Amino acid sequence: MSSQTPVPAGFRGVAGNIGIKDPKDDFFAVVSEVPANVSAVFTRSRFAGPSVLLSRRTAADGRARGVTVIARNANVATGRVGDDHARELQEGVARAAGVAPEEILVASTGVIGRPYPMEKVRAHLEGLPAEFPPADLDRAAGAMMTTDTHPKAASARVGGATVTGIAKGVGMIEPNMATMLAWFFTDAELEQPVLDEVFRRVVDRTFNALSIDTDTSTSDSAAVFANGLAGPVDTAAFEAALYEVALKLVRMIASDGEGAGKLLEVRVTGARDDAQAKVVAKAVVNSPLVKTAVHGADPNWGRVAMAVGKCEEETDILPENVRIVFGDVETYPAEPSDEVLERASQHMKGDEVLIGVDLGIGGGEFTAYGCDLTEGYIRINADYTT
Amino acid sequence: MSSQTPVPAGFRGVAGNIGIKDPKDDFFAVVSEVPANVSAVFTRSRFAGPSVLLSRRTAADGRARGVTVIARNANVATGRVGDDHARELQEGVARAAGVAPEEILVASTGVIGRPYPMEKVRAHLEGLPAEFPPADLDRAAGAMMTTDTHPKAASARVGGATVTGIAKGVGMIEPNMATMLAWFFTDAELEQPVLDEVFRRVVDRTFNALSIDTDTSTSDSAAVFANGLAGPVDTAAFEAALYEVALKLVRMIASDGEGAGKLLEVRVTGARDDAQAKVVAKAVVNSPLVKTAVHGADPNWGRVAMAVGKCEEETDILPENVRIVFGDVETYPAEPSDEVLERASQHMKGDEVLIGVDLGIGGGEFTAYGCDLTEGYIRINADYTT
Repeated sequence: MSSQTPVPAGFRGVAGNIGIKDPKDDFFAVVSEVPANVSAVFTRSRFAGPSVLLSRRTAADGRARGVTVIARNANVATGRVGDDHARELQEGVARAAGVAPEEILVASTGVIGRPYPMEKVRAHLEGLPAEFPPADLDRAAGAMMTTDTHPKAASARVGGATVTGIAKGVGMIEPNMATMLAWFFTDAELEQPVLDEVFRRVVDRTFNALSIDTDTSTSDSAAVFANGLAGPVDTAAFEAALYEVALKLVRMIASDGEGAGKLLEVRVTGARDDAQAKVVAKAVVNSPLVKTAVHGADPNWGRVAMAVGKCEEETDILPENVRIVFGDVETYPAEPSDEVLERASQHMKGDEVLIGVDLGIGGGEFTAYGCDLTEGYIRINADYTT
Repeated sequence: MSSQTPVPAGFRGVAGNIGIKDPKDDFFAVVSEVPANVSAVFTRSRFAGPSVLLSRRTAADGRARGVTVIARNANVATGRVGDDHARELQEGVARAAGVAPEEILVASTGVIGRPYPMEKVRAHLEGLPAEFPPADLDRAAGAMMTTDTHPKAASARVGGATVTGIAKGVGMIEPNMATMLAWFFTDAELEQPVLDEVFRRVVDRTFNALSIDTDTSTSDSAAVFANGLAGPVDTAAFEAALYEVALKLVRMIASDGEGAGKLLEVRVTGARDDAQAKVVAKAVVNSPLVKTAVHGADPNWGRVAMAVGKCEEETDILPENVRIVFGDVETYPAEPSDEVLERASQHMKGDEVLIGVDLGIGGGEFTAYGCDLTEGYIRINADYTT
């Protein structure tokens, strides 16, 4: 295996086709040669699947070498047998890699309500090589894809170390639920509590700032594995590198949202605090009326004002203090001329649309990422027939 | 004026064309001959317009005779001049009707960010008849319409009294924001505190259970006027009649949602309490993935489970206790056969789709009303270009 995207030292892996549904890759495992620290976050859904429940327990001690993913079957709502299958997958990959089961996270994405075809899964696990070759993270990214239109990988250097992330997610999958999976591998050396703190801060500003359609998957998972082979790094530099990689992946996911034609970035500034900025940014990025206006390249600032207005608990937001821009074109509070609206519309015809909202209260800020809402989203999600 | 929908005793009114935008009716006023009790509720938007702010003050003392509405201009985000115009409208209608300004609520719906064409408004107010004829509530309902495809009116009898409601609302308006307006008139006699309590309870179970697209207008308003001319009525019977009328209007609004092809009713039972049932019902009725599945007549119970799972604070919801039905066809927890899915899909091909979710916890319940999400919604909301 050879990976265009840089692979941190010591990560080995396999990818291939189990035959869950079709002949495309639907399986991978990436495992560190040496023990590694892990930090992981998972969906908070009340319907979280067996893979999430098992991985949550596995990551709880802060130590894990890697992850295995099966695509095209989510192993969700499969009852007791689903728990057994998740554990069997974990054990099979661990055995092949020569590590303990408690060192491998598992994740699944695809149709729900159907058990894994376990005979095929077992046959595939038994055929894995005795020693895993160096990981091909591009192929791993491809093996997770469902309705993604392209694999998503990004990488950055920090001191002598590398941070590489791969992700998948589009809004839902054939024919059921959205799943966002994101895995980060690094040879940087970090204490687990530090890794955990950094990862959660980065996730809050990246994956938790992403919304395709407000629907939350039962399988969302993200983790970073740090095996330390490149030695210690500056924590702040590592956080910056991890943030850069995560943000690239989030932007890739947003642009590749189901039916999406544009990346939508909503930047809220001047808030009382960052938490208030996040509430407002999410209200705007999730508003169907804002999202359809973005689709139509319509600088409809009234809809942005409406979405801000929905944050009814935020009683310190006063309409007279709010500013709304599209790109760098201000459309509120001064009534915009036709010429101004035309410039705003030009900005919105691009692939990346920025809506800025300044609340005029304090120094809090937050940026949320999403996409436009198009006929394509409806077609992808309505046309499946059982 | 003559109204097919029954008009309670003592309500007089006018409707006509100011010429805000086109020659269709865009104005009405309905006023009780005698003083009346009022209960009113308004949008909680931080961007609430001058009409809402003025009407909120006007209704605060529990006394008002009626309401006037201008359509095709929302008088929102119009600054100080918008406040003046709302007051001038209130005073003009009050003068024509021979009552005090503090007895008339005002409401507006339409494009935002543009002042009323006040010369036309003044000319129209000056031309109003010296004595208003009996109200034509069908014509009043029509005069409020924006992208509504038909006027919405309903009526019920309670003892010797009549309760009639009119409403408008589709999800948004040309080209800006959703506005839901609903007005109820009755000749029943009720103490104002009783009227208020009853109205708020009814609104909670009807208009607050309605969601077309999660976006909240800056102008939503609803009020009931009770002039007492038919004498006292049994409070419980009045509440039942008011609920019946309000529910009919809500179902009309949901079926007439922008681009909607179907009414979606989400009935949650077995909740810890009614509040929990409401949280879950709203999560399901608002899920874009559920709404597109309804559009496609796809009994995709996995998406319903996902939407229930999103209520992550509700930690007493356990997947193994949940039941999901489409119409009367159960699809979860037992894995549905093809024959069962086919029956569920048949139900979903009708004009009214019922999704039932039983949480298996307690006796709480709530029903939410919405509609499917279609290409039509995208077209209506994206194709406007400034």
